[in-house]
Amino acid sequence: MEGGGIGLKKKLDLGDVEWTLEGGGRLSEVEVAYTTKGVLSPLKDNVVCVCHALTGDQYMADCHPLTGKPGWWEKMVGPGLAIDTDKFFVVCSNVLGGCLGTTGPMSKDPKTGLPYGLSFPEVSIGDMVRVQKALMESMGIDRVFAVVGGSMGAMQVLDWIVRYPESVGYAVVVAGASRHTPQNIAFHESGRAAIMSDPHFYQGSYYDKDEDMRPRRGLAVARMMAHITYLSEGALQRKFGRRRRDGGSRGFQSDFEVESYLRYQGSNFVKRFDANSYLYLTRAMDIFDLSSEGEGSLVKVLSGVKSRVLVVSFSSDWLFPPRESKLIVRALAAGGCFVSGALIESESGHDSFLLDDRPFLKIVGDFLRGGWRNEGGTV
Amino acid sequence: MEGGGIGLKKKLDLGDVEWTLEGGGRLSEVEVAYTTKGVLSPLKDNVVCVCHALTGDQYMADCHPLTGKPGWWEKMVGPGLAIDTDKFFVVCSNVLGGCLGTTGPMSKDPKTGLPYGLSFPEVSIGDMVRVQKALMESMGIDRVFAVVGGSMGAMQVLDWIVRYPESVGYAVVVAGASRHTPQNIAFHESGRAAIMSDPHFYQGSYYDKDEDMRPRRGLAVARMMAHITYLSEGALQRKFGRRRRDGGSRGFQSDFEVESYLRYQGSNFVKRFDANSYLYLTRAMDIFDLSSEGEGSLVKVLSGVKSRVLVVSFSSDWLFPPRESKLIVRALAAGGCFVSGALIESESGHDSFLLDDRPFLKIVGDFLRGGWRNEGGTV
Repeated sequence: MEGGGIGLKKKLDLGDVEWTLEGGGRLSEVEVAYTTKGVLSPLKDNVVCVCHALTGDQYMADCHPLTGKPGWWEKMVGPGLAIDTDKFFVVCSNVLGGCLGTTGPMSKDPKTGLPYGLSFPEVSIGDMVRVQKALMESMGIDRVFAVVGGSMGAMQVLDWIVRYPESVGYAVVVAGASRHTPQNIAFHESGRAAIMSDPHFYQGSYYDKDEDMRPRRGLAVARMMAHITYLSEGALQRKFGRRRRDGGSRGFQSDFEVESYLRYQGSNFVKRFDANSYLYLTRAMDIFDLSSEGEGSLVKVLSGVKSRVLVVSFSSDWLFPPRESKLIVRALAAGGCFVSGALIESESGHDSFLLDDRPFLKIVGDFLRGGWRNEGGTV
Repeated sequence: MEGGGIGLKKKLDLGDVEWTLEGGGRLSEVEVAYTTKGVLSPLKDNVVCVCHALTGDQYMADCHPLTGKPGWWEKMVGPGLAIDTDKFFVVCSNVLGGCLGTTGPMSKDPKTGLPYGLSFPEVSIGDMVRVQKALMESMGIDRVFAVVGGSMGAMQVLDWIVRYPESVGYAVVVAGASRHTPQNIAFHESGRAAIMSDPHFYQGSYYDKDEDMRPRRGLAVARMMAHITYLSEGALQRKFGRRRRDGGSRGFQSDFEVESYLRYQGSNFVKRFDANSYLYLTRAMDIFDLSSEGEGSLVKVLSGVKSRVLVVSFSSDWLFPPRESKLIVRALAAGGCFVSGALIESESGHDSFLLDDRPFLKIVGDFLRGGWRNEGGTV
């Protein structure tokens, strides 16, 4: 059957109709870029859908084509690893609104032949999930064995199990939340302000400009700021402390090591990411709200879930703190769902889900392996 | 004797020499802008020096000349209040490097006749304190009854009691730290990057440009971001939650209430603050480090302190968290100093020290009143 592949692309069959998004906007064409690992079983019952985070992409376990760096989840996805490609057929697609092949603000609007820019419609987490589901259907897959994702990926997993309760066997929600707090929104808004204040932003219509005439400075600032929220105070202390470069003061030129690290993060990021996509995807996270009225209705929303769910949080994650995961676990349990919660002791903050954290990898692996045995998987 | 006054200004007498700053730079002229409240006693023994925070100024208890808003500590300083102007002669000066009258990067360099911009020398917390001390001496005041300040002001208070142990009777260190954590530095660095990435920054030489051709956008973004760190998650939740303006989506135009609040904070700030000053003062905070080698040497540094010290922190302050204040209290106690620590339960985060928090105001008032009785004050 279908084997692993990178850099794959598929135009979704929308029939004769346009794709109407949750925010009301429409797209007449949707293309999805994705990668796969492992082999699809004859019964098509071994599919794991991996959902990427805000600045992630489909290169979960393959070298990134722009940066040359290893896949962001190469410790998680592979032969014998937690998401075991000897057993599973793993699919990861670039989200709707993204900038690495899937239709997004930098794609050409078929109506005008020009990049969408800010005329791209508002995208929701639900829209991303609907596109992923359509991609699965295009491969003849009606039900996935598991959906797994961290951060914005966790939001997608939550949407999957609510939207398609019959289509997901197991779900792993990592470092996620059922909605953004006002502090989360505030950090995102500062980042968006940095981008939109960049004079090279041109109201989002900068695609005809040279690379250095695009809003890269604003995007780099947004990334610097966001990056602080991905790390814990303890991690920064351990990694950098108050160490200075070359021992002396350099005025405003990255005197402290933590400063030059952040600047490096910012300037590297702009080589692989699009400013408009950053606006659309941060917005999608901000408007995501599984329950608009607190825990009571979260129980109601989650009561239809049929998947078995593992919810993982990290002790030092202050962006999506353990208490947010706890709310999800409680609501799922109150709704009669099968749910396990795991709080991983970690010093690395929100970014823990991307690191080589043994207890984390083990718990995900055990959960999926147990589920696979339960289901009597065919591989 | 000398009575209260606002908008005062004094050129410091430097003798024939230049003023050498801790970073090695020199200034041939230093002017200090300050306000006073209350009346200086005949013995000049009733002086309280108030040190302002990063974006504060000398208008502690007077209407701000640019914004028309009440003084930032009008709940603290006044007749019958915690810093009682019926008893005390209270002096608050704009810090060195500031932008409201005291010599700073927007002042004219006497050598060139042009604003300093980035040719202004590096400023330290110690330099600010030395200027305050010189201002006191120019008024014939050798010893102040008390020094009081929050945040960057708290850093100045700490420097005062270490640098001039014989000259300070009582000290109130509010929401402070003996040094910035790497996370603090990282947030400041993101703000500086926002300013320096603004194409209107012109390497700090923007004073001949029109208002809207100065790096106001970058400065506004820096302020938005910083403002998040001044508030607690709980305060944001209580104030804004996930409420939206007009109930509907506005795309990227401040959809959520918390977004429009932040944008308002950013755009208001630039009317009263200078981008270069923001660079210099954040840097001064970052390089401040009472102990370069941890708690051990903090004890050593603080062992010479002769003032009686009150250290106040706020439970929800995550920028200068209570644990930082605790380190100071412990080190002072270990050094044999007279110190009290007060942890105020508050939901308002770092900004608590600027708010009308009754227990906070009471504890400061009690401390100063007790000290005043102890000293047998003459007023």
